[in-house]
This record gives sequence, structure tokens and C-alpha cells, in this order.
Amino acid sequence: MDSTMQRTPLLISTLLRYGASAHGRSELITWTESGARRTSYREAGEQAAQLAHALRGVGITDDQRVGTFMWNNAEHVIAYLAVPSMGAVLHAINIRLFPEQMVYVTRHGGSEVVIVDNSLAEPFSKLLPALTGVRHVVVNGPVPDGLRDALAAPDHVEQVHDWDEFLRDQPTSFDWPAVDENDGCAMCYTSGTTGNPKGVVYSHRSNYLHALTSASMLSVGQADRLLIVVPLFHANAWGYPYAAMFTGSSLVLPDRFLQPEPLARMISELKVTGGAGVPTVWNGLLQHLQQTPTDVSSCRFLMVGGSAAPPAMLRTYQDRFGIEMIHGWGMTEMSPVGSLALAPGDVEPGTPEYWRYRSSQGRLLPGVEGRLIGPDGAQQPADGSSIGELEVRGPWITGSYYSNGSESETELADMASKFDGEWLRTGDVGALTDDSYLLLSDRSKDVIKSGGEWISSVDLENAIMGHPDVLEASVIGIPDDKWQERPLATVVLRDGATVMIDGLRDFLADKIARWQLPDKWAIIDEVPKTSVGKFDKKALRRSFADGALDVQRVGSE
Amino acid sequence: MDSTMQRTPLLISTLLRYGASAHGRSELITWTESGARRTSYREAGEQAAQLAHALRGVGITDDQRVGTFMWNNAEHVIAYLAVPSMGAVLHAINIRLFPEQMVYVTRHGGSEVVIVDNSLAEPFSKLLPALTGVRHVVVNGPVPDGLRDALAAPDHVEQVHDWDEFLRDQPTSFDWPAVDENDGCAMCYTSGTTGNPKGVVYSHRSNYLHALTSASMLSVGQADRLLIVVPLFHANAWGYPYAAMFTGSSLVLPDRFLQPEPLARMISELKVTGGAGVPTVWNGLLQHLQQTPTDVSSCRFLMVGGSAAPPAMLRTYQDRFGIEMIHGWGMTEMSPVGSLALAPGDVEPGTPEYWRYRSSQGRLLPGVEGRLIGPDGAQQPADGSSIGELEVRGPWITGSYYSNGSESETELADMASKFDGEWLRTGDVGALTDDSYLLLSDRSKDVIKSGGEWISSVDLENAIMGHPDVLEASVIGIPDDKWQERPLATVVLRDGATVMIDGLRDFLADKIARWQLPDKWAIIDEVPKTSVGKFDKKALRRSFADGALDVQRVGSE
Repeated sequence: MDSTMQRTPLLISTLLRYGASAHGRSELITWTESGARRTSYREAGEQAAQLAHALRGVGITDDQRVGTFMWNNAEHVIAYLAVPSMGAVLHAINIRLFPEQMVYVTRHGGSEVVIVDNSLAEPFSKLLPALTGVRHVVVNGPVPDGLRDALAAPDHVEQVHDWDEFLRDQPTSFDWPAVDENDGCAMCYTSGTTGNPKGVVYSHRSNYLHALTSASMLSVGQADRLLIVVPLFHANAWGYPYAAMFTGSSLVLPDRFLQPEPLARMISELKVTGGAGVPTVWNGLLQHLQQTPTDVSSCRFLMVGGSAAPPAMLRTYQDRFGIEMIHGWGMTEMSPVGSLALAPGDVEPGTPEYWRYRSSQGRLLPGVEGRLIGPDGAQQPADGSSIGELEVRGPWITGSYYSNGSESETELADMASKFDGEWLRTGDVGALTDDSYLLLSDRSKDVIKSGGEWISSVDLENAIMGHPDVLEASVIGIPDDKWQERPLATVVLRDGATVMIDGLRDFLADKIARWQLPDKWAIIDEVPKTSVGKFDKKALRRSFADGALDVQRVGSE
Repeated sequence: MDSTMQRTPLLISTLLRYGASAHGRSELITWTESGARRTSYREAGEQAAQLAHALRGVGITDDQRVGTFMWNNAEHVIAYLAVPSMGAVLHAINIRLFPEQMVYVTRHGGSEVVIVDNSLAEPFSKLLPALTGVRHVVVNGPVPDGLRDALAAPDHVEQVHDWDEFLRDQPTSFDWPAVDENDGCAMCYTSGTTGNPKGVVYSHRSNYLHALTSASMLSVGQADRLLIVVPLFHANAWGYPYAAMFTGSSLVLPDRFLQPEPLARMISELKVTGGAGVPTVWNGLLQHLQQTPTDVSSCRFLMVGGSAAPPAMLRTYQDRFGIEMIHGWGMTEMSPVGSLALAPGDVEPGTPEYWRYRSSQGRLLPGVEGRLIGPDGAQQPADGSSIGELEVRGPWITGSYYSNGSESETELADMASKFDGEWLRTGDVGALTDDSYLLLSDRSKDVIKSGGEWISSVDLENAIMGHPDVLEASVIGIPDDKWQERPLATVVLRDGATVMIDGLRDFLADKIARWQLPDKWAIIDEVPKTSVGKFDKKALRRSFADGALDVQRVGSE
């Protein structure tokens, strides 16, 4: 039966128009060397129109890509709004990638215009000669001395613009086109550790639904001022620039001032009510707050994602500052938010059960469906204990990676391997509770595949590290003729430790199923770490393969 | 540029699956003669699956219509979820219509199965002989003595079922079909005062987006228990059955116990945190609470809609009980919520400005766009004072009325006249502020069209009623050779009033623009009222046309 409803598309321009009118007095508050700079949503709407007219003027007439090379500031948010609204596609380039990766993603995405913060003009000028598709550079802020020539030098650069001049005299309203809601509106690349970064193209629809749903779960409103530390150049800025247009929350944008001290000042001086950032940022802030008392009483919550936050940090923020730290889990491929660790409303705050929920990876957002696929390819029950690789689907989850036809067969095969029919393979392994909370433990490449069953390396590590004599433990799977893989436990003992490996194995006996107990162990001096401080299991596997580990066999298997 | 995102449809089944798992412990709490009856969302999900299987068994295999003739109770919510999820179309029949209208809408909609509360089986049995398309009747609760035969009597009725038996032995899970999100999922008829009711057909998409957006604005969550007094048989139950699946709020369903005393008991005994109903209901409750002290401290907000709530009631609930009464405005044609009168976050509570916002018809929801069309057909500015007829568009606003081919030319023309291109004419006249709040005053049929300009009858009435000698005033437009229409003010004076008509006109001089001042007046004994207590301007116009009013001319025009 046909519906009689209008088929109004879900567009970024709808959000922009709404935010600039209904929430016209809300503000983008950009931190600068001389304090806060304020841009009302009404002004942001006008500048978005001006930017769109100016971009039309340099040939952005259809779905061409416009790149940004910027910190979190008002102009970056305005680009987030204007470029999709005019029917073009925003590519916020990750300024933290290696130079060759930045060149790769900019060329692969195909940006013809790039907007660059003046504080980033120098590193950008180094990349520009290789960015042969870029015709126009717009510099946000005065162009630094001596850099204008460098930016204008490459043959492919037609003109270098100052943001203010680029927008000046342009009309402050724009007849935003009625594009298809499934058209691309923004692209984002994963920062894969191996091979070239892979890109996804968000649609108007996916960004609209993602922002509306995640904002709805966080219960933020017009009275909120949200400190957005998560970079706009990374993982779609967790959807905040779009969610703010729905909710009218003001956004506090730290630009390049990402150290604990200025962040604490922003919270206290601007009466920030919530924030979004990675664990490292909030951990640094916590250290600072503990040493330098600062009034952060305005702050109600901090959303944390990107990697798992230590439970102790959640507890300290809660107990000492009354700040609810909300775990989020997601992926660039998921726009990015898939789940938020808000405790169920019927669980008493402060109880162990409450903290189990709060420390989980969170409850799937409505619209996101998850399933667990076990080692034999069969779906596992959502019972809180059966483990499998998490697969997800939903309206803001990618169904493929972006191909511009330049990829090798190997790359295309790798891209395709991340999907299981209409489901995205997340690469995360863990359990799903019957009330839709994620309990993720391992990456699928780290889980130990033993005799058609999976053993969580992280569960084993946590159990071993529970022994008082153990400083660190890292468990990897090593090849086994009979079982395919078996766990190898590498352990760093504390100074003066007396425990022997047999003792460690006995210690695990009542904590871990017998078949999962490691029968190979190695005492090492230090667990190798990656640049962000995670256990570097690749290095450990290499050491094992090279015969550099002193492996001892214990137990009966 | 194509997006890489999945095109997962927005379906009611997505909501049902989500609510039944993520919020499995939340409850539908149905009030009965013997207290509260509880159905968890998990159980509701299982019963929805059973209902769907049972309906398949009686031939609901595609998009056939399933009617309900029910109060607000768990089984009605389960039908709201199951029927759309299985791909069929729910028609909640308005049990408050005149019998001939109930017969009309049921036949026009085409229900083949109707689910009936046993407490409503008797009136339904009177209609049933005329409902020749109805093949099966499912009775919720034991069939009252002697009614089974009456229900089974009509030739077109193949079978009468008990709800419990209908569901018994059916599987508790269902493989919900992947229908198109734009397919019809539920239908609803307006209760037009003239002519046949007109129907709209909601889509999965429209109901999904409406529920998500309105729930998001209200900031409700899993810890909420919402008292849903607004009938599920009227105006899509304001979207609450679907919103609850997103948010996990429990729903308190009063069944037929709609008097102030049981409503007050539900709030205090079930620790209700919010509610939804029309002004009459909340006004009755307020009278009760003032006479019979009851603990309603759990209640945070009451949403009120259907007609304008008196500002004094908003103030009293706030000041005396700390309950925020939230004005909503909408239409059946809008799913129904178009706006909510939450004050902007930057306006200080309690100030006159705050109360102006709270007493308005509210801020348009994100996604709903509004424009004002003036008497000359030109769009009016959103400046808070220019008035026009409000037209709206958006993803949960109807673009047409449902036609089954049986309508007369006149009816079809009437249906088409409610649309202005892709915009729905709301029939409401008023202003729109620059921050998207509605200030509606008149229905378009009541506004006075004078010399190409509009005069608000309600503004005149309020100004006249500001005079201490005036008890009531109602203003209608009467034909005028020169100006097309001019206002006629009908006034009921208080006992002992001394004011004369000239005095009333002088009283208005500094309140109303000179050209708007009524030059025709009539003193009457009482303003005629409709059955719901509104001024009956149709009756007044008839009295004027019949020469039954003693009209006096004053002023110079």
C-alpha cells in the first residue's frame, strides 16, 4: 500500500538551515592565542552560503571534492556544512598521517580545492607539489610571510585565496540544491597500519541519521557547550558538527591548543558541559586537574572513544569530578558511532553491575544491528559469553570502500574481504549481551584459533596480570600442528618476583577453562609497544618466529 | 558521487527488534480494575511475533489492513508494532467518532481483521453488520457473555477469535520482511467536522523519523515511565509506541480509566515521570490534584497538544508541582508532531520571555520546514509579527490524502485543495519567529479578510476580554461590500457591567491597529460553544445571517 507521505530527502542543507534559524544564537567558540572567538550559528549559516558561492566561482559546480587541512575551528565547521549542502563532497584530510599517506588520500579522493589553516600552511606547502589535482588553495587566516609564493608555485595551482577575501561580497544566502539523500556528501579515510588508507563516502542520509540518533542518545540540548577535541579531520568528527545543528548545542573548538592546560581553561572559562575525545586526551586532562585544581563543575559528561578507556579513569572522573565518562565504540566505516556505554536506566548507579555496563563498549545505537560470527562461520548467540567476530549493518555503516579505479587487484580483494554480504566485518571479537551491549576483547587478528574454537588473548593477559608478581603479560597465538594455534604467554615479572611458570599456570586454573590454558610460556624483559603504547603483538610474533624467545613448555598438552 | 553507505531501510521492525532486545526489561504497564498489569518489551516482542504468525494464518499475507478498536493497553501497542512489521497496514479506528463515521473509515480503509477490546465489543458489534469487508474479529480479553454470537452473526465474519487462543502455540519469533521504507505501515483519519473523514497513510520511514526526532527533543530515556493518555486510536498516538522502542521508556497505558482519580493514582503508584494528553485531561487532573493531595513528585513533564492549553494551567503545573507542561502542535497529517514549546536554552526560566516561548505553539522540529503565506499569496517573513497561513513540509508530513477510488469529484477537489505544491496547508494562521517558534492565533476560516489584509479574530477577542466588564467575546468576519469582510464583535458582559460599546472601542484604541477595530458590535447573552467547549463561530455566523443578532454600528468606517 502506497504511503501518502512526502518524500522529503534527509539533507545536510536541512540541518544547516535549521541550525542557522532555530538555533541562530548558539555559537561556534574557537579558542585562539588571545581567548575565545565566537561565531553564532546564524553567522555560520551566512558564511556557509558565502563559501558555497565562492566555491561555485572556482568551478565547484557539481559533486567535486573540496578538501580541508585544518584544526577544529569555526571555519572548519562551516566547510563541513557548506560543502555537502551545495552538493559537493567534503574531504577532511587527516593531518596526522605520514606525508606520503596524506598525498595518497588527497590524490585518491580527488580534491580540487583545499582549505588550509594558516597555522598548517607550512606543512601543507610541502605536500602541495605532489597534489596535482588541486587547483585552488584557500588559506584560513593571514597567509604567513613567505608562504604565499610557495603555495602558488606549483603549476597546477591556479590561485591562492585568503578566506576573508574569498567570502567577501558573496551573498549571505544560498539556494541549496535538492540533491538525492543517497548522494555522497563527505569522505573519510581509515588510518590503516598496513597498505594504503581505505576511503568511505558518507551520504547525506547516513550523516543525518547518525547525527540525529547519536545526539538523541546523549540527551544534549541548546543549553550545552560541547568541547570537541576529537579532530574534525578524523572519523567524521563523531558527527558533532551535524548533531549540533539538530540540538543547538554550542561547540567549543580548541583549534591547535590541545594540551591539558588550555583544555582545562576552556572548560572552566567557557562553562563547558560535555566533551568528546580519545582516552589519551582525557587522561592528560585528568593528570592536570589532579595537580592544578580547576573548576570543571559545569561539565556533565565526556564522551571517549577511539580506543578503550581504562575503567580506573572512568571511576576517577565520576567519583572526583562528578563527570560521567561515556565510552563510545565505532569505526570510520560506521560514521563512526556504533554504540555508547550508557548504563540501563533500571540499574542502580555505583553498583558492580552498573560499572560493568559503563566499562563495556556500550549498547548498539538504534538502527545498528550486530551479530557475532564464530570460528566455524556460524552465528553465535547474544548471551554475554559466546564469542565471535562482530559484524554490523545499518543506515550509517559502509557497504563498500571507495574505489576510483586506481586500486590493484590485491587492494580490491582486501577491500572486498571486509564485508560478509551486507554486513561489515568489524575485526573486533567479543560477546554481545541479550540487551545489546558489546563486550569486545580482541582484534580478530589477535584471537587465538585453537581446534576450531577461539581463545581471547586479552582475557588470558588480564588473568595473568592479576598475579601480584606479574608486571605485564602479552599472549599471542603460535602455530600448532594439532590445534592450528595455541597460546604463547609472554610475561614480564616484577623485581624480586618469586613465582615460577608452573605457579602462574596453577594461578590460572580456577580462572580460565582448562583447554584454554597456555602450555608455552616465555619470561621477557619488556613487552614491545606500538607508538601509541599498545602491546605490539606483531613484534612479539616476529621475535617468536626468529627464535628470539626462550619458550618453556609446561602442562600436559 | 555515489556514497558507499548501506541503504538499510528505516522500518518499524527495526524498532521492534531493537526495543525487544536492547530494552527488553522496559515495560508496557496496563491499568486494570485490579491495578497494574505488566508486559516487558521482550514479551511484547514475542507476542508481536505470535500475533503476526496468527494474522498470516487468517490471510494477512501482504499489505492488507488490520484494524483496532481498542483503548490504550499492551495489546494495542503490540498491534502497533506487529502489523506494520509484518508488512501489513494498521488502522487504529477512532472509537469516539459518530457510528456512521466509524463505519465510513473502516470501510474506506479496508480492514479485513479487527482487534477489539472486550470492553468495546458491545458497541463494535453494533457496527459490525455494516463492516462487510471484515472477515475476522479478534477479541482482547474474554468475550462478554452473549456477544460472541452477535459478533459471529454477520455473513461476512468468518471467525471470532480470543486474543489468547489466537496467539497460543504460535512461534515467538518472526522473520520480519524487508519491505520498502516508503511503503504504507499505518493509516489514520482526521476527525473533520464537515464531510467524510480524510485518511493519511504513514510510511515506515515517516513513523521512524517522526518518533526518533520527537523523542530526541524530549530527552526521554530508559528510566522514564510515560503515561500515554492520548489515545492510540487518535493521531498516531503522537508516535509514542514507536519512540519508546528507541528510548526504552516504559509506557503506562490507562486503558479505559481516563478519569482524574485513576490518572493521579497511576502517577503516584507507578512513579510516572512524564505524560502525554490533551488540555482537558490535564486540566481535570489539575483540579483533582488541587482538591486531593497526591504525590506526583516523580513527574517531570506533561506534553499537551490537540488544542491550545491555557497559559495559567502551564504556570500552575510549573509553580505548584514542578511539572513542565510542554505544548505540542501538530496535525494527524503531520504524524502528528510539528513543534514543541521547549524554551530556548539561553532564556532564563521564569522570565516573561521564557513564558512567551513556553506559551507559543513551539519550535518546529528539525526536519519540519514552515512558511507563511499571506492574503495575497506571497510568502511572509519569519519576523514574529507578519502573519500568514502556515504551510509545512517534511519527511513525516503527508503529501496527499488517501484515495481508494470511491470519492466524489467534490471530495477529491477538497482533498487536493489542502496542498500548495509540495506544501501542506495547515489551515492555521499566525506568525513565525526568526528562531522558528510558531505563534498561531486563528484557523484560516476564522481570520477576517479585510481589504487584502488579515485581521486575527483571536487577537481581537483577547483584547476585548481584557476589559474588566467583559465575560466573553467572539469575533467573526461578516461580508462587507467595500472591504470584502469586516470584524463583528459579539460580547457577553458581566453582571452589573456599565461599559457601553463606544467605551469598549475606546478601550481597544491603544491595543489594536485602527483599521482593525470592529465597527459592528453585538451584545449577546452567551457565546455558543461546540461539544468540546470551543467558541462555535459557525453558529454565530448563522445567527448573524438569520438576522438574530442586534448589530450596532460604531466608529467612522
